Amino acid sequence: MNDAPLTLLGTGAMGTALAHAWLKAGHPLTVWNRTAHRARPLAERGAVVAATAAHAVAASQLVVVCLFDDASVEETLDGIDLTGKDLVNLTTTTPAQARARAAWARERGARYLDGGIMAVPPMIGGADTGAYVLYSGSSAVHEAHRDTLAVPAAVTYLGEDPGHAALFDVALLSGMYGMFAGITHAYALLRADGVPAGELAPLLTSWLNAMTHTVPKMADQLDSGDYTKDVVSNLAMQADNDFLVRTAEEQKVSPELLAPYLRLMRQRVADGHGDEEGAGLVDLLRR
Amino acid sequence: MNDAPLTLLGTGAMGTALAHAWLKAGHPLTVWNRTAHRARPLAERGAVVAATAAHAVAASQLVVVCLFDDASVEETLDGIDLTGKDLVNLTTTTPAQARARAAWARERGARYLDGGIMAVPPMIGGADTGAYVLYSGSSAVHEAHRDTLAVPAAVTYLGEDPGHAALFDVALLSGMYGMFAGITHAYALLRADGVPAGELAPLLTSWLNAMTHTVPKMADQLDSGDYTKDVVSNLAMQADNDFLVRTAEEQKVSPELLAPYLRLMRQRVADGHGDEEGAGLVDLLRR
Ligand SMILES: NC(=O)c1ccc[n+]([C@@H]2O[C@H](COP(=O)([O-])OP(=O)(O)OC[C@H]3O[C@@H](n4cnc5c(N)ncnc54)[C@H](OP(=O)(O)O)[C@@H]3O)[C@@H](O)[C@H]2O)c1
Ligand SMILES: NC(=O)c1ccc[n+]([C@@H]2O[C@H](COP(=O)([O-])OP(=O)(O)OC[C@H]3O[C@@H](n4cnc5c(N)ncnc54)[C@H](OP(=O)(O)O)[C@@H]3O)[C@@H](O)[C@H]2O)c1
Repeated sequence: MNDAPLTLLGTGAMGTALAHAWLKAGHPLTVWNRTAHRARPLAERGAVVAATAAHAVAASQLVVVCLFDDASVEETLDGIDLTGKDLVNLTTTTPAQARARAAWARERGARYLDGGIMAVPPMIGGADTGAYVLYSGSSAVHEAHRDTLAVPAAVTYLGEDPGHAALFDVALLSGMYGMFAGITHAYALLRADGVPAGELAPLLTSWLNAMTHTVPKMADQLDSGDYTKDVVSNLAMQADNDFLVRTAEEQKVSPELLAPYLRLMRQRVADGHGDEEGAGLVDLLRR
Repeated sequence: MNDAPLTLLGTGAMGTALAHAWLKAGHPLTVWNRTAHRARPLAERGAVVAATAAHAVAASQLVVVCLFDDASVEETLDGIDLTGKDLVNLTTTTPAQARARAAWARERGARYLDGGIMAVPPMIGGADTGAYVLYSGSSAVHEAHRDTLAVPAAVTYLGEDPGHAALFDVALLSGMYGMFAGITHAYALLRADGVPAGELAPLLTSWLNAMTHTVPKMADQLDSGDYTKDVVSNLAMQADNDFLVRTAEEQKVSPELLAPYLRLMRQRVADGHGDEEGAGLVDLLRR
C-alpha cells in the first residue's frame, strides 16, 4: 500500500473531493483552507487541519494546491519557505501563468508540476469515472509521486513544459464550450415550436458523438498542411446555403452563438479556399 | 424483394449517392437533373434518364426530390402535374419552407413527406454507417414507402408536422457547428505554441464524447423548468474565472468563436441565476 503523506491547500468543492480520495486510500493528509470552517469536516475523516498555510506546507514534502486562480496561489504561498518541496498546482490557470509559477517555485528551491483537472468533483476518487488530470512540468515530481497523484484521478503526463497542462486543459474546455453553445442554439430552435428538448436529446447525443470523427481528421489536415485532404463537405457548399440563419430567424432565435463560425466560413470561401473543410478557419483566428 | 419503382429529381453529390443505393437494391429508377450530363452515368447502372422533369415525375407515383434549396424545388416542379403523386422532399430547407411546400403539394393533389438527410454522400447505402434520414409529414407516404425509403439510409419518422424534420435537421447541424467552432478554437490555441493538433486529438475526441452527457441533462432541466436540477458546475463559478479569454489573448487567438457564449453566461449570472447551469441561456436567445 502507498501511504505517502501529503499536504493539500484549498478545500473548496474540488479540494474537498481530492482530500476524501486521499484519506480513503490511507494517505496521511494535512489540509489548510483560508476559511477554516470549510476544512474542519475533514478532521473527522482523519486529516490534520493546519492553522496556517505555512504550517501545512511544513508538514509534507509533497504539497498539492487547489485554489481558485493563480492570484490566490500567489497570495497563499507568498513568503512561505518552499525549499525542497514538490509543489503540484491543480489550480486552473493560463499556460503563461503556469510557466511563471514554475519559475517562481524554482527560485524558491521547489520542484514544480502543474495540473489541469478534467473532471467535476463527483467524478474524483471513483472507479472508471473517466476523470483524469493533465500534468506537465517536472518529470522528477511526476515520477516520485505518480502513485499518490493517481489516487483521485488518472494521470496524463504531457512533458516538461509547465505550460502544456494548462494549454491542453483550456483547449479541451474551449472545445466543450463551443459544443455547449451549439447545444444551446439547438434547444432554442425547438422551444420556439414548443417541442420538448427531450425529443431531440437522444438524436443530438449520437449525432455529436458521430461528428467527433472531425477531430482527428481536422488534426491531420492541420498537421499535414494539406487542408483539402479527404474533404467530403467542402466550405463552398456549406457556406452557400443560408438555412441555418433563416431557420433561426423563423424560430425567433438569435443566431449570435453560431454567427461567428458562419462568418469565418464565408470569409475562408471569399479568400479562395472553398474547396477545403474547416481546418483553415484555425488560421483566421490567429492574430 | 422490394422492387417498387421511383423517380429521383436531382443527381448532385447526394442525389447520385441515393440513386446508386436504389439501383443496387434493384429498384426501377427514373432520374432527371437540370444539367443533363450529371445524370447520364446513372443510365449505365440501369436508370432511365428522363429528358424533362415533367417526364420524370410522370414515370412514378413516388417522386423523391434532392435539389439544392427550396427555390430550386419551386423552379423545377412549377407547372408540373402532381396529381396523385407521393412527393418526398430531401432538399435541406427551413421548417417554414417545408410547411409551405407541404401545403403547396396538397393544393396540387400530392401527398407530401419532408426529409432531412443526416449523412454525407459516402455514408449513403452502406451497412451500419450511422446514416439516417429524419422524416415528417404524411404518415401515409411514410408507411406506403417505408421499405423503399429505408434503402439509402435508416428512417426516423417524427410525426405529421411537415416542418419537424427540417427543424430537427437544422437543430442537429447547429449543434455540430457549435462543436466545430469549439474544436477550431482549441486547435488555434495549440498552433500558437507549435504543438501538433494530433497530440490533442485523442484527448479532445474522448472529452467531447464524455461531455455529451450534458445533452440529456440540459433537456431534462429545460423540460422540467427546474434549471437548478442536478447542478454540478454552476454558472457563477464558470463565469467568474477568466482563464479562457486570458489564454486566448496569451496565445494570440481571437476569442470571437467563444465570446458570445461567455457573454451569455455572465449575463445569466448578472440576472441572478448564478446557481444554475447553462439551460437558462436558451431563454436568452429567444427574441
Ligand atoms: N469544481 C469543478 O468542477 C472544477 C473542475 C476542474 C477544475 N477545477 C479547478 O479547481 C480549482 C478549485 O475549484 P473549486 O471547485 O474547489 O472552487 P471553490 O469551491 O470555489 O473553492 C475555491 C477555493 O479557493 C480558495 N480561495 C479563493 N481565493 C483565495 C485566496 N485569495 N486565498 C486563499 N484561498 C483562496 C477558497 O477558499 P475559501 O474557502 O476561503 O473561499 C477555496 O478553498 C479552480 O482552479 C477550478 O478551476 C474545478
Ligand atoms: N452533400 C451533403 O453532404 C449533404 C448532406 C445532407 C443533406 N444534403 C442536402 O442535399 C441536397 C442536395 O445536395 P448535394 O450535395 O447533392 O448538392 P450539389 O452536389 O450541389 O447538387 C445540387 C443539385 O441541385 C440542383 N439544382 C440547383 N439549383 C437548381 C435549380 N434552380 N433548378 C434545378 N436544379 C437545381 C443541381 O443541378 P445542376 O447539376 O444542374 O447544378 C444538383 O442536382 C441539398 O439540399 C443539401 O443540403 C447534402
